[in-house]
Amino acid sequence: MIGNFIYHTPTKMYFGRDSIKFLPEIVEKYGKNVLLTYGGGSIKKSGLYDKVKKLLADHNIVELSGIEPNPKYDPSVVTGAKLCKENAVDVILSVGGGSVLDCSKAISACAMYDGEGWDLISGKVKAKEALPVVDIITLAATGSEYDSGCVISNTALCDKRAYVDDLLYPVASILDPEYTFSVSKWQTACGTSDAINHVLEQFFAYPSSSFNDGVMISAIDSLMNNVLTALRDPDDYEARSELMYVCSWGCNGILANGSGYSGWPMHSIEHALSAYFDITHGAGLAIITPRWMKEILSEKTVERFVTLGKGLFGLGDDLDGFDAANRVIDRFFAFFESIGIPMSLEKLGVKADKIDEMADHILEYDSTDEPWMFAPLDKAALKRILEASM
Amino acid sequence: MIGNFIYHTPTKMYFGRDSIKFLPEIVEKYGKNVLLTYGGGSIKKSGLYDKVKKLLADHNIVELSGIEPNPKYDPSVVTGAKLCKENAVDVILSVGGGSVLDCSKAISACAMYDGEGWDLISGKVKAKEALPVVDIITLAATGSEYDSGCVISNTALCDKRAYVDDLLYPVASILDPEYTFSVSKWQTACGTSDAINHVLEQFFAYPSSSFNDGVMISAIDSLMNNVLTALRDPDDYEARSELMYVCSWGCNGILANGSGYSGWPMHSIEHALSAYFDITHGAGLAIITPRWMKEILSEKTVERFVTLGKGLFGLGDDLDGFDAANRVIDRFFAFFESIGIPMSLEKLGVKADKIDEMADHILEYDSTDEPWMFAPLDKAALKRILEASM
Repeated sequence: MIGNFIYHTPTKMYFGRDSIKFLPEIVEKYGKNVLLTYGGGSIKKSGLYDKVKKLLADHNIVELSGIEPNPKYDPSVVTGAKLCKENAVDVILSVGGGSVLDCSKAISACAMYDGEGWDLISGKVKAKEALPVVDIITLAATGSEYDSGCVISNTALCDKRAYVDDLLYPVASILDPEYTFSVSKWQTACGTSDAINHVLEQFFAYPSSSFNDGVMISAIDSLMNNVLTALRDPDDYEARSELMYVCSWGCNGILANGSGYSGWPMHSIEHALSAYFDITHGAGLAIITPRWMKEILSEKTVERFVTLGKGLFGLGDDLDGFDAANRVIDRFFAFFESIGIPMSLEKLGVKADKIDEMADHILEYDSTDEPWMFAPLDKAALKRILEASM
Repeated sequence: MIGNFIYHTPTKMYFGRDSIKFLPEIVEKYGKNVLLTYGGGSIKKSGLYDKVKKLLADHNIVELSGIEPNPKYDPSVVTGAKLCKENAVDVILSVGGGSVLDCSKAISACAMYDGEGWDLISGKVKAKEALPVVDIITLAATGSEYDSGCVISNTALCDKRAYVDDLLYPVASILDPEYTFSVSKWQTACGTSDAINHVLEQFFAYPSSSFNDGVMISAIDSLMNNVLTALRDPDDYEARSELMYVCSWGCNGILANGSGYSGWPMHSIEHALSAYFDITHGAGLAIITPRWMKEILSEKTVERFVTLGKGLFGLGDDLDGFDAANRVIDRFFAFFESIGIPMSLEKLGVKADKIDEMADHILEYDSTDEPWMFAPLDKAALKRILEASM
């Protein structure tokens, strides 16, 4: 069953080796004044920074560097928006991973808004326009290169928000798998865990369709297989290309058009963890995933586990539904452990004495207990998941 | 392995029951003067025509009706382009199946061109602009509602051409599965056969990727299962919705981004058949499919059959590759027969004495023997396929 939906991803995707050659003709369409955004400088080491500067030699480039993981409203978004206004920037070029791109998307809206930018990000005010964003993505993970969302942290408020608006789709995304060869084992594992979780958040919903189920199972299967290859051989183009492509499908809705919406509860939990302890997003999600699964397993949800187990792990009809579900949960736990994620929040620095506060925070800011959700989680359930994850 | 590609589908999809309610706000963006295109009048019987007229009561509507299956350059495209020019049309609204939409796309380009429209369609001249096309699709089949192509016949030249241009993407497509409840068993079977063939044309190519393979197998599986339900119970919303959605993925490249390109040989053959005998496209494709498979089965291609057999029919590793391939071929033959396609071209009125001429025609107009193709077909091979299909 495919329910009602509206779908639109206007982003043009340039995929593959040397796709950067299209950069000048892409940027040219929007103007001469460019805000170049990037992170800690790994693009300087890799030579990508020089390549971009050379390709855009006849453009006026202003730079915002040092954008952090879990990008911050202040200083990054605030500074970027100010630079755009002061320099009459026509287009933002984001070079880096999902954090740099998320920050750039937030800047693109805040740059065209006269009030306090956080009002847009927190949903108090709806943006009317945004600058065009072009990106060169260097990490296979968030899917930000092909969606209309960004996640921004506000340290002052201890808040981390998903900000979604059609205005935030990049106009063009350049995805060259070779840029991900140098991604560390840790980031490769965390990026893939993030992408797997994106699919799972959409898989666990009603109604479902056999087509969407097949697409999502194929996505998870590809991510699980190819990350193992990429961890063994970081320069394996085949594996890196498949990881990069599949990750890009994570968050724009295409995996589950017309399926039900779960409310993305694992992301709600992880956003609180990151807001309090600034842990790596994908690692947090991997740790939560099997614990969330255990918590929500019930007569009502067991069919989803069975479908997943059959398609992904070849679990047969001979198994009782709950047995199959528990095997699925065990397989995910073992898989995340096998790619190097320490399967305990404590090891990432999370303190158990904050669990109660975080549970309140989740319910206040993201909410996981709406009755329409696939498996609503009240405060007690949230605490059980977090405690089991320690 | 995901190879290099550029992908972009700007069409906004409005899917589901009563999505027609969005029509006024969609059309409004483009202007007041509308060319309404449709076919033989089934939209009048179903009440859709009245609904559209009511929703667009404050627009100036010019009509082009009577657009035929396998739409003709002359009179349909020529007349439509003339109407657009004479009435300063701002936007074309196509209401009907893939043929009406294909014709409307061709009109949208020809209306903005001063020379002979066939020069655009035949690729002699590149269009610079096209009118926006909005569609309400009433048949699950061609995927035209989500791609940039159209197929137009030129009776005078005995020619049928696939015309593809980024300008031809509909700006918005409205897909309401309920409009397909009244589609006859024959058209339901032929539309689904068309869609299955679209996937197969893309599946049989190198390089492939495990992700794309999974998506394509899930698409074929969904089409095969849901068409059986829809034939049994034409008003089954679940089946009709899944057919409609999966069909829309057929031809815009998303099923096989970064996979190899086969050259779509079965479509090349069918285009000649339709040009000579005006047979139903999907029926022609269904008849050709197993015969084409038999012809191209070889050491080089057998792995594709094995992957398809494993994913789609659960064929096990115990089978020898060629045995598995032959089972796949038999399964497709039996499936098409089971949904009511007479598996012989003769029964559709094709005359064997034209086979030689059609083979020449294919090689001249579409070509199937390029060395880069997955399985090049010379004249002798084309004749063998056509003869086996009689």
